[in-house]
Amino acid sequence: MTYRPPIDEILFTLTRVASPPGSPPPVPVDELAAILEEAGRFCAERIAPLDRTSDLVGARWEDGRVTTPPGFREAYADWIAGGWNAVAQPEAFGGSGLPVSVGTAAMEMLTSSCMALSTLPVLSQGAADAIEAHASDELKALYLPKLVSGEWTGTMNLTEPQAGSDLGLLRTRAEPLGDGRYRITGSKIFITFGAHDLAENIIHLVLARLPDAPAGVKGISLFLVPQRFVAADGTLGAENDLRCAGIEHKLGIRGSPTCTMVFGDGGGAIGWLVGEENKGLACMFTMMNKARLATGLQGVAMAEKATQKAAAYALERRQGRAAGFDGAAPIAAHPDLAKTLARMKALTAAARSIAYAAAAAIDAGDAGDARASLLTPVVKAFCTDIGCEVASLGIQVHGGMGFVEETGAAQLLRDIRIAPIYEGTNAIQAIDLVMRKIPREGGSEVARLIAESRADVARAENRVGPSAAILAEALSALETATAHLLAPAIGEAAKLLAAQTYLRLFGLALGGALLSRGAAAAGDSRWAKEADWIRLARIYAEDIAAEAEGLAGQIVSTRRDPADYRALAGVG
Amino acid sequence: MTYRPPIDEILFTLTRVASPPGSPPPVPVDELAAILEEAGRFCAERIAPLDRTSDLVGARWEDGRVTTPPGFREAYADWIAGGWNAVAQPEAFGGSGLPVSVGTAAMEMLTSSCMALSTLPVLSQGAADAIEAHASDELKALYLPKLVSGEWTGTMNLTEPQAGSDLGLLRTRAEPLGDGRYRITGSKIFITFGAHDLAENIIHLVLARLPDAPAGVKGISLFLVPQRFVAADGTLGAENDLRCAGIEHKLGIRGSPTCTMVFGDGGGAIGWLVGEENKGLACMFTMMNKARLATGLQGVAMAEKATQKAAAYALERRQGRAAGFDGAAPIAAHPDLAKTLARMKALTAAARSIAYAAAAAIDAGDAGDARASLLTPVVKAFCTDIGCEVASLGIQVHGGMGFVEETGAAQLLRDIRIAPIYEGTNAIQAIDLVMRKIPREGGSEVARLIAESRADVARAENRVGPSAAILAEALSALETATAHLLAPAIGEAAKLLAAQTYLRLFGLALGGALLSRGAAAAGDSRWAKEADWIRLARIYAEDIAAEAEGLAGQIVSTRRDPADYRALAGVG
Repeated sequence: MTYRPPIDEILFTLTRVASPPGSPPPVPVDELAAILEEAGRFCAERIAPLDRTSDLVGARWEDGRVTTPPGFREAYADWIAGGWNAVAQPEAFGGSGLPVSVGTAAMEMLTSSCMALSTLPVLSQGAADAIEAHASDELKALYLPKLVSGEWTGTMNLTEPQAGSDLGLLRTRAEPLGDGRYRITGSKIFITFGAHDLAENIIHLVLARLPDAPAGVKGISLFLVPQRFVAADGTLGAENDLRCAGIEHKLGIRGSPTCTMVFGDGGGAIGWLVGEENKGLACMFTMMNKARLATGLQGVAMAEKATQKAAAYALERRQGRAAGFDGAAPIAAHPDLAKTLARMKALTAAARSIAYAAAAAIDAGDAGDARASLLTPVVKAFCTDIGCEVASLGIQVHGGMGFVEETGAAQLLRDIRIAPIYEGTNAIQAIDLVMRKIPREGGSEVARLIAESRADVARAENRVGPSAAILAEALSALETATAHLLAPAIGEAAKLLAAQTYLRLFGLALGGALLSRGAAAAGDSRWAKEADWIRLARIYAEDIAAEAEGLAGQIVSTRRDPADYRALAGVG
Repeated sequence: MTYRPPIDEILFTLTRVASPPGSPPPVPVDELAAILEEAGRFCAERIAPLDRTSDLVGARWEDGRVTTPPGFREAYADWIAGGWNAVAQPEAFGGSGLPVSVGTAAMEMLTSSCMALSTLPVLSQGAADAIEAHASDELKALYLPKLVSGEWTGTMNLTEPQAGSDLGLLRTRAEPLGDGRYRITGSKIFITFGAHDLAENIIHLVLARLPDAPAGVKGISLFLVPQRFVAADGTLGAENDLRCAGIEHKLGIRGSPTCTMVFGDGGGAIGWLVGEENKGLACMFTMMNKARLATGLQGVAMAEKATQKAAAYALERRQGRAAGFDGAAPIAAHPDLAKTLARMKALTAAARSIAYAAAAAIDAGDAGDARASLLTPVVKAFCTDIGCEVASLGIQVHGGMGFVEETGAAQLLRDIRIAPIYEGTNAIQAIDLVMRKIPREGGSEVARLIAESRADVARAENRVGPSAAILAEALSALETATAHLLAPAIGEAAKLLAAQTYLRLFGLALGGALLSRGAAAAGDSRWAKEADWIRLARIYAEDIAAEAEGLAGQIVSTRRDPADYRALAGVG
């Protein structure tokens, strides 16, 4: 099977689903269509054919050098040359200045084509964002143009062996040299594309601790540490004192080198401060926020690919009898298999709608800030969970062939399984949503979103039919659960215990509302068959959103005793 | 982490949970404990250390010969020598004649220790069962003693490239030679341990079609086709005309060779009929039924191992602050992580309870027939789904380390992911449950099970507290859904669309009832802490069984239109 860029689905989602009815498209629709057609062709023709080899050969480490899989060099060079790396980057630094939504669409297709390779531009863009937002003009001028174009790449150096989710524990040190430079010493792990052979320089953003820094996360600063030094005129100089000490042997995305980086064991790597001293955490969140959206998008991209692959197989493979077919029927015609395929499509469409809604909120600027901030953990966690579920269903649709690596279905699950873990585990996303995001301004942004969603469901009611009631109930369930979690009386442990359930409920309810929005709009657009979106909304309601009330019941239950959990976890 | 045989959990499940209160233990308890201690020690010390190498090296094929991973030969020889292969086999053929429950316990621990190796005795025992039930006395005398001991191994040759779930499509031919022998010609795929270096003979049971056989499944016969011929005195003769043409490169259980077998391309393999002509399907179901229970048990075994591994990591890894700990706390102390670990334990305990209840039903003989038959698809599908869920949660608990293969958490998911597929996909199990199992005798066995389960929940109510109401509601939801599916008016497509949802509801409700049984009995047994089982039942109710009502709602909904599914699946 070859990957088919889902141009129509993406165009419809961008123009009719991601923003409320009547919103203008992110760019004029003909231009949008032309960009996506070209990006899709590039990804399908130049990138997708590399994916299997990327998995089989993987990234290789020898004597501190990392070799990427066959074909990555040429493909990445073409990605840069086509200007794809710079699509949604600021014009001031050579970017195309297109909306984030458009960059999101290109990135979805790159990720579907080869998730391992796609992690490189994701991290580079995160680094570029942090530099743009927080670095001095001098650093910006020196580094941003080549990061934006993709000639140089960027990394985020956060994790250390003892400091993962808890960055307060990190030990990498930064000593000021008195001339604006800092000497960086320490080790980092899990650094995506920390070393590779695709670009002539790698710009590391490194969290480290100044000598007199306060303990914990309030004593972390961010430094720019280039692999090779850059002269004022932009020419490359000597190598910095940093090296890749090894790469991980991973379950998936094996073409993406996950590096252990050692800074300064030859006397000290040289870095420059980004942002203020001891304010590194805030700078890091600039990187993290977009990286979280990009990670959620990986869930969308891999769900799309798994669905395409399973649907193609299920139409080709013939087993058993089914109504309407003589002889052995395509397995897609068996009601149970058809239900699985429809579920995969509905989940994929819902995940895409939510991810693109977040991108549209970013494009709305200040007016969309609260929405983007609220949706970020939902996109990251809900969409990556969907990516894993759909990839696993895809294996199941293939039967025994799904377990055979040559089929390619298993690789999709192996690849996407990292997404619920990195860039903050999905549990951390849920805690972010419940403890920080929904309480903002007394919960007013959630309230606005629920009201808007109710209107979406109401507008689609005449099309979706009685199943629309389930979507409305899901929103009521979300409202009830939100009120419960915002009530002053509820304790912290109860909120933490409810967090992941709440995030799922949030995603389920919002997904149903956005599919309704699509169902209501489908007839007006040349990119979506009206009947299909109505079916998606109906199936989503009956088979997926129907969980919502049960989840709300779990959240508002007051019968849970935190001591039960502690005791069973062995810490009671 | 080393695998710790969960002797106490198994003993408690066998003696207090698998059968209704007051039932005698399958064998006297001291004898039972001694057997399990010894089996556990053997598995943990001799088998578990091979598991990682089994995955890394895998089974290897060269020129038709299969080499198993390092250590398999010696370990399998010791497994046989210890009599473990014969534990639950009939005494008439050299077995120990112990109850199936006891064999189940030994097999659970073997599977946890190395699932890849465990697939060999599973399939061998299936073959032995089929021969015992259907073959002539002559074939039994010639083959069974060495199959029972494990000196020879057995296989099930069902699948062909064009015939997987739909065995009616199979093409392998069998020509009678007129002297009681048949010439077998054809190819089979996905044959577990179809070739290997662990035994001096391999006894293949092969489904094939006689020249004048009716089309479809009514024209399938079963043949015994040995790798090497056996003289009347039991000595081994020449090789039969069959060979292994290759093995699959798989997602998991890489130490278990999955063979393509070619029969008779050198003139004809020789086989003997097992059972009657054209009655092969019935004979095959003798193999399949126990294999399905054994597959469900794989879910239990891998959930147990994943839970142990995750719990150990979560107590050791320190990140962030938590109540009751100075400095960085073990991550198990974070409410969300504690909830995940508790969920893993509750799911594992429920899956084990259901699997052992089915084994107990088999041990009850004729009186347990209807129960064993009803539970078989539930064990196969519900317990393997749990195996996958728990293994995936185990990866998540490990954070970034879960994605690194050296950790071993990822291997557990890769290994168990086959279990929902082979021995009849979980969709096929659900269809078996809904279309064939629950309607038997007007649904009387389900009704008996629900009544028994209600009594279990009621007996535990004073211990479990208000959460017990959720377990009772889950049983009512199961009753409602069952009545809906048994009603004459409901169409076949609606039943098929509801099947997987119904099977999950069945498992959820039954699991809750059996955990209640455990909670009620825990104080009376030396093997279970009363408080732990009460906590398991409570958490299962609040976090897991709480899904049940939503599932019942999905099943009884009359708003689903099968045309929606067909259209989205591309066959509308």
